[in-house]
This record gives sequence, C-alpha cells and structure tokens, in this order.
Amino acid sequence: MRLLVANANTTEAITELCAAAARGAAGPGTEIIPATPRFGPAVIATRAEDAIAAHGLLSLLAEHAGQVDGVLLAVSLDTALEAARQLMPCPVVGMTEAACLAACLLGGRFGLVTMGSVEPYRERIARHGLAPRLAALRGIALTPQDAVRDPQAVASQMDAAIAEVVAEGADAVVLGGAALAGMGPRLQRQAAVPLLDGIACGVKLLEMLVTLRLPRSSTGSYAPPQRRGTLGLDPALAALLRGG
Amino acid sequence: MRLLVANANTTEAITELCAAAARGAAGPGTEIIPATPRFGPAVIATRAEDAIAAHGLLSLLAEHAGQVDGVLLAVSLDTALEAARQLMPCPVVGMTEAACLAACLLGGRFGLVTMGSVEPYRERIARHGLAPRLAALRGIALTPQDAVRDPQAVASQMDAAIAEVVAEGADAVVLGGAALAGMGPRLQRQAAVPLLDGIACGVKLLEMLVTLRLPRSSTGSYAPPQRRGTLGLDPALAALLRGG
Amino acid sequence: MRLLVANANTTEAITELCAAAARGAAGPGTEIIPATPRFGPAVIATRAEDAIAAHGLLSLLAEHAGQVDGVLLAVSLDTALEAARQLMPCPVVGMTEAACLAACLLGGRFGLVTMGSVEPYRERIARHGLAPRLAALRGIALTPQDAVRDPQAVASQMDAAIAEVVAEGADAVVLGGAALAGMGPRLQRQAAVPLLDGIACGVKLLEMLVTLRLPRSSTGSYAPPQRRGTLGLDPALAALLRGG
Amino acid sequence: MRLLVANANTTEAITELCAAAARGAAGPGTEIIPATPRFGPAVIATRAEDAIAAHGLLSLLAEHAGQVDGVLLAVSLDTALEAARQLMPCPVVGMTEAACLAACLLGGRFGLVTMGSVEPYRERIARHGLAPRLAALRGIALTPQDAVRDPQAVASQMDAAIAEVVAEGADAVVLGGAALAGMGPRLQRQAAVPLLDGIACGVKLLEMLVTLRLPRSSTGSYAPPQRRGTLGLDPALAALLRGG
Amino acid sequence: MRLLVANANTTEAITELCAAAARGAAGPGTEIIPATPRFGPAVIATRAEDAIAAHGLLSLLAEHAGQVDGVLLAVSLDTALEAARQLMPCPVVGMTEAACLAACLLGGRFGLVTMGSVEPYRERIARHGLAPRLAALRGIALTPQDAVRDPQAVASQMDAAIAEVVAEGADAVVLGGAALAGMGPRLQRQAAVPLLDGIACGVKLLEMLVTLRLPRSSTGSYAPPQRRGTLGLDPALAALLRGG
Amino acid sequence: MRLLVANANTTEAITELCAAAARGAAGPGTEIIPATPRFGPAVIATRAEDAIAAHGLLSLLAEHAGQVDGVLLAVSLDTALEAARQLMPCPVVGMTEAACLAACLLGGRFGLVTMGSVEPYRERIARHGLAPRLAALRGIALTPQDAVRDPQAVASQMDAAIAEVVAEGADAVVLGGAALAGMGPRLQRQAAVPLLDGIACGVKLLEMLVTLRLPRSSTGSYAPPQRRGTLGLDPALAALLRGG
Repeated sequence: MRLLVANANTTEAITELCAAAARGAAGPGTEIIPATPRFGPAVIATRAEDAIAAHGLLSLLAEHAGQVDGVLLAVSLDTALEAARQLMPCPVVGMTEAACLAACLLGGRFGLVTMGSVEPYRERIARHGLAPRLAALRGIALTPQDAVRDPQAVASQMDAAIAEVVAEGADAVVLGGAALAGMGPRLQRQAAVPLLDGIACGVKLLEMLVTLRLPRSSTGSYAPPQRRGTLGLDPALAALLRGG
Repeated sequence: MRLLVANANTTEAITELCAAAARGAAGPGTEIIPATPRFGPAVIATRAEDAIAAHGLLSLLAEHAGQVDGVLLAVSLDTALEAARQLMPCPVVGMTEAACLAACLLGGRFGLVTMGSVEPYRERIARHGLAPRLAALRGIALTPQDAVRDPQAVASQMDAAIAEVVAEGADAVVLGGAALAGMGPRLQRQAAVPLLDGIACGVKLLEMLVTLRLPRSSTGSYAPPQRRGTLGLDPALAALLRGG
Repeated sequence: MRLLVANANTTEAITELCAAAARGAAGPGTEIIPATPRFGPAVIATRAEDAIAAHGLLSLLAEHAGQVDGVLLAVSLDTALEAARQLMPCPVVGMTEAACLAACLLGGRFGLVTMGSVEPYRERIARHGLAPRLAALRGIALTPQDAVRDPQAVASQMDAAIAEVVAEGADAVVLGGAALAGMGPRLQRQAAVPLLDGIACGVKLLEMLVTLRLPRSSTGSYAPPQRRGTLGLDPALAALLRGG
Repeated sequence: MRLLVANANTTEAITELCAAAARGAAGPGTEIIPATPRFGPAVIATRAEDAIAAHGLLSLLAEHAGQVDGVLLAVSLDTALEAARQLMPCPVVGMTEAACLAACLLGGRFGLVTMGSVEPYRERIARHGLAPRLAALRGIALTPQDAVRDPQAVASQMDAAIAEVVAEGADAVVLGGAALAGMGPRLQRQAAVPLLDGIACGVKLLEMLVTLRLPRSSTGSYAPPQRRGTLGLDPALAALLRGG
Repeated sequence: MRLLVANANTTEAITELCAAAARGAAGPGTEIIPATPRFGPAVIATRAEDAIAAHGLLSLLAEHAGQVDGVLLAVSLDTALEAARQLMPCPVVGMTEAACLAACLLGGRFGLVTMGSVEPYRERIARHGLAPRLAALRGIALTPQDAVRDPQAVASQMDAAIAEVVAEGADAVVLGGAALAGMGPRLQRQAAVPLLDGIACGVKLLEMLVTLRLPRSSTGSYAPPQRRGTLGLDPALAALLRGG
Repeated sequence: MRLLVANANTTEAITELCAAAARGAAGPGTEIIPATPRFGPAVIATRAEDAIAAHGLLSLLAEHAGQVDGVLLAVSLDTALEAARQLMPCPVVGMTEAACLAACLLGGRFGLVTMGSVEPYRERIARHGLAPRLAALRGIALTPQDAVRDPQAVASQMDAAIAEVVAEGADAVVLGGAALAGMGPRLQRQAAVPLLDGIACGVKLLEMLVTLRLPRSSTGSYAPPQRRGTLGLDPALAALLRGG
C-alpha cells in the first residue's frame, strides 16, 4: 500500500525526518511517500500557524487523492485532521491522534510532553474526546532549534518532564512534536513507562485501516463534499470539493 | 470605533447581508466595515470548507490589522476564531460564539437551530466550553438556497425545530447560519423563548471589548506571534506572523 | 437606559464603590442607580450569608421592577442570579458571571483570584456551565479589611496569585470580589494577561442586552412567576410572585 | 435522637404530611420535630421561590440549633442545603439529595419524576455532582393541586413517566416533590424498579450521620461562620452567624 | 437484621478486623456475619487481584443468598460490587462506595487517602459517578505490612496526606483500605475535617436499605439473572445464575 | 507473531467463530491461537457473568504467558481487560475497545448496537474514557440464540438500530457482541456509515502493538505484579502474581 506522509509546514527537512521515521515503522508492503506543502508556515508552533497551514496541507492532499491508500498528517497538532478525513477518499490519521489512541491501549491515563505551550495540545486531546484519559501535560521551555543545537540539554529536560507526568498518573507518554521523534529511543531508556511516537503509531493505524477496507460514510458531516463551489483554489482541491 | 465584519466565504452577497445586520445593531459611534476573502469556498457548509476558509479569512484580517478596533467573524462555524484572536492586535469575536454567550445570560440551557448537519455546531460549542449549557440542536433538511426560494417553507420548519429544542429544555435559541439572520424577527413571533442572532450579539460584544480597553496577553498560546517564518503567504499575513 | 446596581449585602460603602465603578464603565446614555438591601449580611463571605442575602436582594429588586432597564448584581458570588433573572421583567447579570463570559472572549481558559475560600467560586463557575473554561483558582489568605488597611500587602499577594493561575494556563484572570475592583489598574500593570472586573463587564453586557430588546421566555423555568402565594414578604416582592 | 423535619414553604399541611412520612421511616429512638417557616412562599415551584425561601428556612433552623441532632430539609429542591450544612452544628440532609444517594446504592443510573419543570432538578442533581448517574427526568403537566383533586389522573401519568425513565436506563426512580410522597406505595406497584421517597431516605441517612458522631470541619467553606455581622435578621440566625 | 461482612481476600485476620469494626457501628438489632473467600488473592492491591477476587467473593456471597438481609463488601476497591448487586436477593454496599456517599453528605468535595497507587481508586470513584465530587487523592508509599510494623510512621505520613487533600479543597476525607480502618480515631484527632471509614458507613447504609424494604428491579441490567448456564462453578453460585 | 484469541465464556463454538474472524483479519505472519476457559459462564450477558468470567479468563491467559505475542479478549464487554493488561507480559486488547478506537479514526462520534441491555456497554465505553465520542447505543430485544434461529429477523432489526444511531449523529457504528460478527458484511450493505467488528480491529491493533515493541510500565498500577500471595489459584496464575 502507498501511504502519504504529509508535512503541514514548508520545511523539507522535517518532512524527510518524518518520512524516515515512517519507513522505519512501515510493514513490508508499505511504501512511504513524503510530501511538503508549497506555501504556509515554515514551522507550526502557534494557533495562527496551525489554522493557516490547513489550506496548504489540504491542497497538497488533494493532489494525491486517488493515488495513495492512506494519509498520515505529520504535524503534531493534527492540523486540519477532520477536514482531511472528510475530503479524502482514503483513511487519514493524525500523528498525535495516533499516539494518543495507542497510549489508550497500554494503561489507564496517558501524559504528553512537548516543547512550548501545552494548551493547544490540551485542546486537541479534548477535541479527540480523550480528555478523560489525559493525566498531565508538560511543555519544556526550549525550542526545536535548541533540540538541534544541544540535544543533551533537551533530553535531560525531557527526562524530567516525563518523570513528572508519570508521577501524576500517566501509564504511557506521548511525545508531542516531530522534533522529539528522533529522541524516542534515548528518552525511552530513562522512562518508567512506554513512550509513543506519533509517526510510528500513525503508520501502523493506517495499515490497519487500509487493510480493513471500510466504506466511507455516505451521510452526516463526514460524507464526501458534493457540488461545493470555490474561488481561487488549486484545481485538485477545487475538484475534490466539487465531488462527482 | 471601526468594526470589521469579515465574511469567511467568497460570496459578496452574504457579506452585505451580514454587514446590514451589523449596522442595524451597531451603536451610534460604530462604523461597520464589510470584507470578503479573495479566495476560498463560495459557502461554508462542510468541515473541509471550514478548514480551507481559514487562510483566506486570516489573510483578509491581516490586511486590516491596525486599521480596525475589532473584528466580527461573520461565519456561523466561527472559522479560525482562535487563530484570529491570537493574530490580531484587536478583539475578535465569532458570531455563533457571541450568540451562545448571550444566550447564557438569558436562562439555563440554550438550543441551536440551523440548516444541515448539527455535528460541527455541537463540536464548536464544545470547543467554546459551553457543552454543559447546550440543551439540544436541530438541523432542518433544507439549504440556504431553499431559504431564498421558499422562505415560507423554511420558516415553518424552523418554527417546528425551535419548538422542539424548547421542549428539550432550551431557555433561549441560537440561530445558526447567516441565512437565518434575516428571518429572526419573523421566527421570534412564533417562539416561546428569545432567539439570538450572532451578528447583532457579536457587534455588541465587540463594542464592550473595545470599550474595556484590555491589554493583550504577553504569554501563553494567545500571545502575539513573533519571528514566525512563512512561505508564499500574503505580505500582510506574513508580516503579522513575523511580529515586531 | 437605567441600570440598577444592586449590592446584596447591607454595607452602603460597598454599594457606593460598585456604583462608582459602574459609572466609570457606563456608556453615554446609561444612568447608574445604586441600591442596598435593608436587611441581611453585612458582607457575604460564606455559604450561609450567600443564601440568606437572596431574600433581601430580591426584595430590593422587586421595588425597582418596571422602573429600571437592567439589573447588575454587585456581589461576587452572583447571589440569587437565576431567581432574579426569572423574577424581573428586565435583563439581570451577575458581576462574576459577566467577568467570566468576557474572559471567554479573550483566550482559551481563564483563572480567578479572590480572598478566602475558592470553593464557592468553583461551584458558581460550574453552575454557569463554564468549568471547562476554568484553568485555576487562587484565594489569598487575607480579608477585604486587610485590603483597606494594607493595600500594598494585598496587591503583592494578588500579583503572585495572578502569576500562578497564568502559569497554570489562564489567558485571562477574573478578579473575584468587589474589594478587588479598585485594585484592577494597579494589578494589571504587573499581569501578563488581561484582568477582568465584573462591574465593568456587567454594565457593558447589560447595555448589550437592553439594546437587543429580547422578549422574555413564556415557558420553562425562566418564565415569569404567576399566581404564586406568599406569607409575610414585602408587598413589591409578593406582587411580582403573584404576577398578572 | 431528635430530628427536625423543616419544611421550606409556609404551608403547615405539607409540613404535617412530611412529618408523618418521617415518623413512618424513623427508627425506635428517633423523635420527629416538624417545623414551618413563618414567612416565605406558600409553595416552592419556581426558581424565585426557592431563593426567597432560604431566609425563612435558615431562620427556622437557627431557632432549633443546639436542640436537635439532625435536620431534614423537607423541600424537594433541597433549598439552602449547603448554607444549612455550614450553619448548623448538626448534620443536615436534603430530601432529594437523600433519595438520589440512596438510588445510587441500587443500580447504575437513576431517574427522577416530578410535576412541572425538570430543569431545576437537573441543576440540583448536577450541583450534587450526580449528573453522571442521572438517566432521565420527566415532569408531568399537572400540579400538586391536581394531585389532591384527582389522584387517579396523576397516578396514571406518573406510571407512564416512570416507565419512560426506566426505558431510558433508570435502575431506580426518585419521586421529586412532597406531593408525590404519599403516592409512593401505589406507584411502586406498577413500577419495574424501586421508587425512592426523599423523606424516608433522609431520615435514615440522618440516623446514620448522627450515629457516626463525626466532627465538623474546622477549615474550608463548610467551617462554621465566625464573627459575621448582619442587619435586621432574627436574633437566633444573627447569633449563629456571629458564632463563638 | 443479619448483615454479611464479606472480605474479598483470603486473609482471615482482615475479615476479623472488618467484622469488629462493623460490630462497633451496628445498631442494636443488627447481627454481623463475617465471611472469607476460600480461594483468591491473599491481599488485593493490584488490578489483577481485584479482577480475580470477584469469583471467590461472588461464590461466597452465593452461599449466603437468602440467609442474610444485606451484604457489605469489606474490600476497599468495591470488588465486583455491580455484579453482587445484580446477583444477590438483598441490598449490597461497597465500603468505599459507602464512605464516598457519606462524604457527599458532609460538604462539597471529598478526598481519599490510601497506601499505594491511587489510580484504581480514581477509576472506582469515576465508576460510582462521583468524579465531580472528588477534590484529590493521595497514596503514601507504605504498605499495610508497614502499618502493622510501624503504625506511628504510617500515621504521620497519613496526617500529612490528609492535610494535603484538605488544602486542595476536601471537606471530608475517605480512608481507603481496611488497614487504615483501625487508625481512624487517631488520624481524626489531627484532621481538620471529618474522616470516613467505609465499614462503619457501609453498615449504616445497609441498615437504611434493609429498613426501606425496596423491591428489586425486574428489568434492566440489575434484574436478577435467569436461566444463565455455567460450567464448573460452585453449586450455590450456579444456582443463583440459573435463577427461578 | 502468535496472537491468543481468548474467549471469556466456556462455549467452544463461540471461540471458533471468533478465531475464524481473527484469521480472516490476520496479516501474513500472524498465527491465531484460540482458547476457551475451563470454567465460568456459558455466555456472558449480565453483570454477574462478566465479573465471574474474569477468573477463568485470567487463568487461561496465565497458561499462555510467555508463549504468545499478544492477547485479544474475544468478549464484547472487554472482561477483565485492565487486569489482563497488567498481568500479561505482552500486549492485550479488548474487542469492543478495539472497535471503539478504530471508530474514532473514522469520524466524529460513533454508535454501538447490540442485543440486550446497553447499559453495561455505556459503562464500558465510559471506563475507556470515550464517552465524549459516543453518539448513541441501541440494544434490540433479541438474543444470540435468535440470531442463530432467525438471522433475517435479527438483521432487519439491526438495520433499523443502525439507522437510528446514525440519525443521532454516529459516523461509524460498533457491532457489540460476537454473535453480530458474522453479520457484518450483510449489515454493512444497508448501512450509511462504516460498521466495525471488534475481532478484526483487535487483531490489527495487536499487530501494531507487537510491531512497536514497547516496554512495559515499571511503575504505577499497570506495573507487573510482584510477590503477591494467593490461595487455591491455578499454578500458572499464581506464578504470574508472584512475579519474579
């Protein structure tokens, strides 16, 4: 099967990082197809960037509609997840969504650690309906750039953050943010509970959904768009909204 | 004060309808400035359209940043509300958000009636944290186009929908969707509880916020963006994300 | 329009303080009419006082029924709010309710700081259905009397309390208690997020509601009382309950 | 032990009805002391009456402070329950609170049936923190007066209402309102699940609390009032607020 | 009346401890019948032990069906409570359930202190639907064996844990675990709020339920089992499942 | 990999049915090992049976500990799931848990249809923390035996039940109960949204978890049991509880 690993920011290097992680998790018959939007935020770290990125991401997805068997949103806020799920003719999974659902299979409540503000993650998890499963969130005051410059400093702050959410009741911890993905094995060695990487979980959940061959909804708010008019959008995206 | 009434779809006629309603509600010193995005969905009725519209809407807002005292999002799903609130240097209010908060001031629980699927509204109200105040939602199986063609049919189905949510405990009812705005007075005559129009409520709440002259947050996820890089966005939007 | 600013305790000085704050927030055509109950607690700081105060407050309101366009309950626990809303022929708003709803328009979650126990505020916010929007509460171990004697000590403890609720995720902070109202500007200078004063917010929300000219409910638990018999109540209050 | 059965309305006949039910449930050593407020609503059927009744009820309780071992609030909205619990030196239980807690001991979720609007009951149950245990509420469109005039009609509507809440998942049903108390045995014969009468449950829960001889809180919002000043209240109530 | 005090582990000494506490709380006409399962965990401290213990406990209960008037589950996780309630022809109460419900009668929110992990208690309280009433939980890092060896150390850690949950808003504190039962009076002397022992509360709630003589449900998921086939179960348990 | 498909009742035919479904969903390298408890309920349809079955099921699992790579609980109430997850040295998934999590990947809210009472499913979903994602449940008044005798009647009632939960907002529907598994393809043809079979979903989720090679928790309530004593349990189960 062919899985699109769609970054939502315009930084190719992050796309490559995620694609490599996806290939590491993919099963034998799974091909990973990386993709990067042509416009939008360079990195998504704020509410405004998350909202703006949706357009570029959905335009990118539309170009691959019909040519891939599943889509992994390689962006830690699960940007435009619900829209992509409605729009695309194949399964779509968000990386943080994937890690949170996998965490639910491992214990009672889970935690999430990230860099920067935790509030958008709290809201994302609430939108996923998983607030009752969330034990605690922690955001360290370092940036993805710091992670490149001084991975040791980031790792030790992350170790501490993970220990804190475990102390607050987390039986598993989601790593929030692509920048943390590479650190997973290193962080896991210090952690008392399993750590979850959204890219790996997302690839496996997509393999599940593709294999199950479920039909799309033909009713309700996830039914495919039909006869929706647009102005000034990319042809592929406009065509998907027009349906037919 | 100058209030931007920003449509999120590209249909000028809807912008004009909302602007007229806004002028009807505005206080003596309030100037209403209508605005329509240059690209995006013609009408927002699905999840996909809602997500795509954010970019055009935020680009539009960015062009007015610093030139208006407040922004009313004239779109019933409160498209990109949180992003706009973070991005803009002035207060931002969504029309359904406004109507729901006003409804909270009138009784215990409120209802919402609209055309089409109610699930996106249920989710929006949950994101506003107001699920505990929501008594019931009803979506009639007619479209805004029907409302133009046969307003009488729409009105009588709406009367019935309103009566149903009142029977389920609503002390006030939010009219969801710009297409219903014009019908407000007519529907009110048949209704046992007050009906709330988001445009009118939004204008008044913005007048309140502008008058209170509150500072912006300088911390947390609503602090203004700073030094955020972008690719291929409109100059005004890119500048707001760059901050400074 | 004429707005009644109704204190719920019997201390005239607090009524005057609130009325002054209300005048500061009122629009050009708004007249502020202060009122103080003739019996009840001198100050409302406990559950028992809150419950007892309802009678004196509602008696006071009843005397003004038909002569004012709106009522602001100038008491930080929103004493008897639901009862007053049902009873009076005009809009009624509580000061903490007002500040909380305004806070919802400024960010994600809000905090509340006060003097004394926070539990009654937590319950009030839950009754307003806003628990999902509440980040944290803090009560400093000082009294309103301390605020008069040593405002500097209260201010610095409040600064710390505000910083704590911001660190727990509050994008805006409600000042709980009339005694804090005067301190607003001073506290704001040290705060990283907007602070909300219930009197100012309440006046503006009432101006909104009065302007919207919404009808009362004619059904449900907020419909006006009719033919309710009483024993030993003030004539004005008894008359309102009798209705007709 | 001596248990005060305190009505919150001024109708002696209802007090007597409740006292009789309480005597029927009381254990061998329990003395039932009926009491009726000297002022307030004749019957409590609306939000306004509920709030007003608190004063008369708490004044009544204060007169018995120190002379009774427990207090049952014989009013179906549990009027002023939290205030009474803080104020009195002995345990206080509300009749609907009692029935709901007893219902929790009998199955999963419970229902409530009453006459008139169910919204105040829904809110009361939410304030008790028991919303997750509530399956459904039903209010029949008859009044307590109808129950006197045509008990057969009320009984058959109640049978239907009970069957409906059972169909919605109730494993036990709370009878809301003193007027229904007398009908309990008759309704039980038609019901598929146990029906709960608040007076009987309240007496038994008070016997439990009195026997357990638990200390009062000396901290928090239920600690006894101390040095609270008042104006124009009954001497006994003023004394309790003064504490000492 | 005859009340079965059923331990869920196989340690007779704990059964005796609980029976003694039950006798201390029982009213004049109440006989306490202690019982211990013949197989299962020696002590229940983990999720696995809790699940395994259900079988032995229900087998034990089945042997007493028809011969007792009520059953108290003397196990702090309320092991198999819902199953026992469905199965037995008499009222069944869990000890932590009992203490939590009693705590609800004493204030706003309650806390729970125990030895070991608090997560299973958090989940139990959520299953009881009482999460909204829970202020905080604390588990000290000592075992019931430590409580025997060095009761003083346990008591002082418990004092601290109780003080912490009170500081987080608890108006009453549930003692979680049979091992703490004996320490109740000693801990109460240091505590600012009432402490609740599940055995005492459970005995009194059972006395209430037995006295109320409520019928069983004849419908829904708590109706008695009928014609359920089994393999290899004790005859008494198999007979109860067969019903008839 | 080797996956144990563990029935929780003693009916071999159901084990075989589930194993066949599991084989249909399993990937190339996955071996399905069916297993049936040696004692317990013949079918699990009530709360009592669910609790009793835990012992036999966990005894069965213990016999396979160390010899399988994952365990699927082939029982629709996810019997003893949390205990099995703590106890076993490999991943454990429940069939309804699996279907619910898969449903979360397909839309907003999901529904569940089953035979008999829906309340135990409602509670199970709440324990999974997924109540916010649940749109509606329906239980038809037929038994698994009816499904064998008259599959057509069951199918048409199921079609209606599915249509109802879709009308209440479900974007996907979980088939609750092994008896429905075989009907999946037939029901899907009539359904407007995807239907989810727990066996298929569970197999794929286990394949994911086994592939991810996550460590077990070494702390918290899901850490493996250590030095837990038992009486009269099967040697394999006793050994797992003893740990080591």
